[in-house]
Amino acid sequence: ELVELTLLFFQEKTLGGQHWVITAGPTREAIDPVRYISNHSSGKMGYAIAQAAVNAGANVTIISGPVSISAPAGCKVINVESAEQMHQAAMKQSDNADVFIACAAVADYRAADIAPQKMKKSSQDMSISLVRNPDIVKDVAAKANKPFVVGFAAETQDVETYALGKLTSKKLDMICANDVSIATQGFNANQNALTVFDKDSSTEIPLADKAMVATQLVKLIAEKRS
Amino acid sequence: ELVELTLLFFQEKTLGGQHWVITAGPTREAIDPVRYISNHSSGKMGYAIAQAAVNAGANVTIISGPVSISAPAGCKVINVESAEQMHQAAMKQSDNADVFIACAAVADYRAADIAPQKMKKSSQDMSISLVRNPDIVKDVAAKANKPFVVGFAAETQDVETYALGKLTSKKLDMICANDVSIATQGFNANQNALTVFDKDSSTEIPLADKAMVATQLVKLIAEKRS
Repeated sequence: ELVELTLLFFQEKTLGGQHWVITAGPTREAIDPVRYISNHSSGKMGYAIAQAAVNAGANVTIISGPVSISAPAGCKVINVESAEQMHQAAMKQSDNADVFIACAAVADYRAADIAPQKMKKSSQDMSISLVRNPDIVKDVAAKANKPFVVGFAAETQDVETYALGKLTSKKLDMICANDVSIATQGFNANQNALTVFDKDSSTEIPLADKAMVATQLVKLIAEKRS
Repeated sequence: ELVELTLLFFQEKTLGGQHWVITAGPTREAIDPVRYISNHSSGKMGYAIAQAAVNAGANVTIISGPVSISAPAGCKVINVESAEQMHQAAMKQSDNADVFIACAAVADYRAADIAPQKMKKSSQDMSISLVRNPDIVKDVAAKANKPFVVGFAAETQDVETYALGKLTSKKLDMICANDVSIATQGFNANQNALTVFDKDSSTEIPLADKAMVATQLVKLIAEKRS
């Protein structure tokens, strides 16, 4: 029966007329013209959510960091590199969004100064000074005309504690926690498992292909919004 | 006539029986389980050199950092992530190599400590302490039974000065300099242009597809060795 209800949800294009904005992939923070700081996000989860939202009839905008996968047909894609670029695009696109899903693995910090030329290795040790990047999902959730805002918490320990902390402190409507210390799920894997929290409840989406997890998540978001 | 001579070089499998070892791609230096420092190397140049050496009859081993392109058929590929892993593989593979080409964009520095858990963002500013990575091409060139060693110098300024400095200080047999500040050549481009120095001379390989540049470079190395 659950499967049939899910099929119906997508067949009926339940999200028709809605604008969903989804960030995906890593960001790259330049150190100099050739070096950067990044992370292992593949973009697969964000792109899978975009595909599921398209399947359910939504107009979808993906704001994507550098990935090597193709965007689902029918999505608008805005390509960015850095967290600051993603922040700018997210603030703009969320103006007329119904749902904003922050699935990208955004770098928390960027280099304080980007060297204009390739840095020469001169000493045994060195250090890179970093400054905080803007908090994209927090800033979108703080907007007066905010959409329904869904965050992600990719953690390697104390997953639930950190996720609930982010839900409250960033004033999110929902947060999806996953434990990326488990190799079969998360960043570069084809599968994922999520625990989804809102202020009243939590829902387990068990380990499955990211497409299947995305389908359940999109349906859950639609239910919680209504 | 030059084209005919080049064709003959490849048709006659001039490098038959030789073992060429080529490093390619970037390295990734972990900061914690999800974050890393890397660079924009695509691996295209190293893989193109491997293809050209295979075409000329060599047995080719590629020691490759993380790339999203496929290795040429007939190559042995050793996949690595960090500079230390690449160094270990290079020292071993170069034991029975005739030619060693260090085309990878190896990170000069790695994090002094790799955090076992994802680092939490706690303060506005932070810094990452870095220590020097081993110098792979220098260490291979310092071996008693060293192969013919070819380095690369990807620079954004004073290209010739830096390249000649590396040729001498690292005791290389040859160095290929390219200016990666020019968008049409180098790291992520499909074309490249090289200035190749040995202790006596320099040779220009003009801007062309990386396959064409690799073909000329492999022929040049073979001539200089003989």
